[in-house]
Amino acid sequence: MTFTAVEIIIAKRDRGALSTAQIDWVIDAYTRGEVADEQMSALAMAILLNGMDRREIAEWTQAMIRTGERMDWSHLDRPTADKHSTGGVGDKITLPLAPLVAACGAYVPQLSGRGLGHTGGTLDKLESIPGWRASLSNDEMLDVLRSAGAVVCAAGTGLAPADKKLYALRDVTGTVESIPLIASSIMSKKIAEGTGSLVLDVKVGSGAFMKNVGDARELAETMVALGADAGVRTVALLTAMDRPLGRAIGNALEVEESVEVLSGGGPSDVVELTVRLAREMLEAAGIAAAKDPADALKDGSAMDRWRAMISAQGGDPDATLPRAGESTEITAPASGVLARLDALAVGIAAWRLGAGRARKEDPVSFGAGITLHAKPGDIVRQGQPLMTLHADETARFDRALEALEGGYVVAEASDPALLPLVIDKITPAGA
Amino acid sequence: MTFTAVEIIIAKRDRGALSTAQIDWVIDAYTRGEVADEQMSALAMAILLNGMDRREIAEWTQAMIRTGERMDWSHLDRPTADKHSTGGVGDKITLPLAPLVAACGAYVPQLSGRGLGHTGGTLDKLESIPGWRASLSNDEMLDVLRSAGAVVCAAGTGLAPADKKLYALRDVTGTVESIPLIASSIMSKKIAEGTGSLVLDVKVGSGAFMKNVGDARELAETMVALGADAGVRTVALLTAMDRPLGRAIGNALEVEESVEVLSGGGPSDVVELTVRLAREMLEAAGIAAAKDPADALKDGSAMDRWRAMISAQGGDPDATLPRAGESTEITAPASGVLARLDALAVGIAAWRLGAGRARKEDPVSFGAGITLHAKPGDIVRQGQPLMTLHADETARFDRALEALEGGYVVAEASDPALLPLVIDKITPAGA
Repeated sequence: MTFTAVEIIIAKRDRGALSTAQIDWVIDAYTRGEVADEQMSALAMAILLNGMDRREIAEWTQAMIRTGERMDWSHLDRPTADKHSTGGVGDKITLPLAPLVAACGAYVPQLSGRGLGHTGGTLDKLESIPGWRASLSNDEMLDVLRSAGAVVCAAGTGLAPADKKLYALRDVTGTVESIPLIASSIMSKKIAEGTGSLVLDVKVGSGAFMKNVGDARELAETMVALGADAGVRTVALLTAMDRPLGRAIGNALEVEESVEVLSGGGPSDVVELTVRLAREMLEAAGIAAAKDPADALKDGSAMDRWRAMISAQGGDPDATLPRAGESTEITAPASGVLARLDALAVGIAAWRLGAGRARKEDPVSFGAGITLHAKPGDIVRQGQPLMTLHADETARFDRALEALEGGYVVAEASDPALLPLVIDKITPAGA
Repeated sequence: MTFTAVEIIIAKRDRGALSTAQIDWVIDAYTRGEVADEQMSALAMAILLNGMDRREIAEWTQAMIRTGERMDWSHLDRPTADKHSTGGVGDKITLPLAPLVAACGAYVPQLSGRGLGHTGGTLDKLESIPGWRASLSNDEMLDVLRSAGAVVCAAGTGLAPADKKLYALRDVTGTVESIPLIASSIMSKKIAEGTGSLVLDVKVGSGAFMKNVGDARELAETMVALGADAGVRTVALLTAMDRPLGRAIGNALEVEESVEVLSGGGPSDVVELTVRLAREMLEAAGIAAAKDPADALKDGSAMDRWRAMISAQGGDPDATLPRAGESTEITAPASGVLARLDALAVGIAAWRLGAGRARKEDPVSFGAGITLHAKPGDIVRQGQPLMTLHADETARFDRALEALEGGYVVAEASDPALLPLVIDKITPAGA
C-alpha cells in the first residue's frame, strides 16, 4: 500500500490515529529518502503535540526495527540481560553493573551511546581508558561477550537505521521531548539488539530528561509495554536525578569511581543503585544467581569481569587515566547543612568544563569534570571544600561557576527534600 | 541578535509567543538558508497547532516583506486599488473586475497566481488567450498600467522571497491550513506589491479554503488588521463558495464568460459580485467615481480597458480561444428543483478534466472544464442537460463523473439552503 507523506502528516495533525499501513509506509519511505526530512520533522512535531496511542507507538517501534538487522543471542548457553538509563549526571552505573551481572551468571551485551548536552555517555567514559575501542564487529562483540561475559560497545549502523536518521532530525528540529518518540527510539534499539531481558533506569529530576515523576512513569510504562509486546522481559525503575549520582562527574573521574565500586568501596548511592539494578536484571533474565550481587562486588569476581572486558576491547585496566591540568575549589559559604545540590547545574558545569560536547562532532576532555566533597544532607563547615572543578584550561572555570550559581545551598538546619534513590518499579501490566 | 532555530521552534512548540527579534531572525535566516527546511516545517507545524497572536502575525508578515523589494505606485497620478480572492470554483472575477475598476478611475496593479488543486488560477485563465504573457518586468508592468489602467501579471521573484520559499514548503508538509500562515502569506505579497488599497474576497463553503463562516471571518479580520497595520486601506467581503460562481468552470470557458460580463451580459451572480467588489475597491481607494461600475459594464468602457490590457501584454482580444475536443453531458435524473450543486465536487471534476494541475510543474488544458446549464434553485425537467463536461481526451470523463457523484441533487420541491452571495463585510476594527 502506498501513501503520500502529506496525507499522513495531515492525519496526525488533525488528531487522527495512524493506521498500521501508514506507519509501516512512512518509516520505510523515510529511511529510503522518499519521505523528505522536512516532511518527517513536520510529522514529528504533530506527534509531539498530538500524541500517539499505545498501538501506534508499538507499530512505530516495530517499523523502525524492521528497517535494519536484528541481533540474536539465543544460541548462547546463558540468558542475556541488558540495562538502559535515560541519562543523568554522574550516571556511570553501566560500568560496574555490566561486569557485575556477568559475574552473577548472565551475558550482558550492551550497545551504548555517546553523551550530548549535560548528560555523559558511557562510551565517552570508557574511551578515557588508554587503548579501549568502542567499535566492534558483530563477531568481535560475540568474542568479548563469550570471554568476559559482558561487552559494552557502540551500536553498529545496521540496527534500526530509521531511528538513527530520525534521532538526528529530532535533535535539530525541537522534536526530542515526545514520550512516544523517546520510547520508540530507545526500545527499537534495545529490541533490535536482541537482549532477552531489559531493565530500564528512568531518571527523574532536574538533571534528567523527565523532570517529574508523572512524566517518567508514563515513559516507563510505555517502554515496559513495548518490551513486553516484543517478547523482551522488561521492567523499569524510576530513580532520583534531582542531585548527581555518586561523587564524580566527568569521563575519567567516573571510571575511577566505578573501579572503586568494583573494589568493594565507592559512594553508597552508586553501590546501592548498582546492586539493585543487578538484582532486577538477574530476576528479569530468570537467573537464580549463586551469589548476591552485593557479594560479587566484595569478593573480586565483578572486578575480574571488568578487567577481562576492558582488556578484550584493547584497554589497559591498569593504565593511569587522563587528568585535567587545572582545578579550582568551591567552598561552603557558611556552616550548616548542604540543603541542595542541583543535578542540572552540576551537569551543565561539567559540560562547560569540557566533559561533554555541544555538537556530535566535538571531542570531549577525558580529565575534565567535577569531584563532589559533600552530598545533600551532609553537615559542612564554612570554608570547607564543597567541590573541585577540573578542566584543561583555566578559561573554562568562569562559565562553569556561572552554571553553579544558585545550584547549591547551605542552610542553617535543613532536612533536604530529596527524591528517594529508587522511587518506584514499573512492571508489565498484569505481570 | 542571533538565535538558534531549535530554541525558536521549542518556544512556539511550548505555546510561547515569539519575540520581534526571534521572528525577524528566523524569517531572514530561513530565506538565506541558515535555517533548514526541516526546521522551518517543524516551526510551521507548531504555529499551525499552537497559533500566533496578532502582534506575531503582523511582525511575521513584515519580516517576510523585508526579505524582498517593495513596489511603490505613489508617484502615479491616480490611486491604486487591488483585490485578492482566497480562491474558489468558477471564480473569474479578477478578469472583468480589473478593467472595470480602471474604467472607473483607479489604477489596478494586480499580481496573480496560478491554480493548484481544485481552484483555478487567474494567470492560467488569461494564458488561454493566444499570445498573452504573464511575466512582465517592473517597467513593462508600469507601461501596461499607464496605458490600460490595469495590469494582471505574475509576481516577480523579488517580492517576499521568504513567502515563496515558505509556501512551497508548507505545500509538501501538511502545514497549509493555518490562519496565521495563510493571512501572512497573502498580505506579505499584497503589501509588497505596493497597492494603496485592497479588497479581500474571502470565500466560504465547500469549494473554498475556509469551509465555514467562523473560520473565514477570523481569516478576514486577521488580514484586514494586517493591511491596516501596514497603511493599506483594506476591507474584506465574505462571499459564497458553497456552489460554483457563474456558469463556466475552466480556463478558456471562464475568459469567455468574463467577456460576456464585460459586454453587459453574463450570469447574474458574476455580475453582482463584480460590481459589488468594484464599488468596494473604489471606496477603499477614496475615488468618488464619475460613473457607477454597473454602468461601465453596459457602456463599453470596461470592455475598452480589457482590450487594451490584453493587447498590451501581447494577447489578441479577438482570437478564437482553445476548445476541448471531447464533451459529455449530465442530464437531470428527475424533474424538480436543482437543490444542490456542490462547489467542491464541481471543482474537483473540472480539475480532473484537465483544467487544473496536481503539481506545480504540470501543464493545464485551456479548453477543459464544465459548463453549467442550471444553478441551484432552478426548476429542471427529467433528461434536461444539467452540465456539459469538456476535456481533451474522453478517458478523463470517468473520474470527473465520479467526483460529481452526490455533488448535485434534484429534489421534488426544494428551497435550497444557500449562503447569501455576499455574507458580510469586514472593516478594520474601529473604522
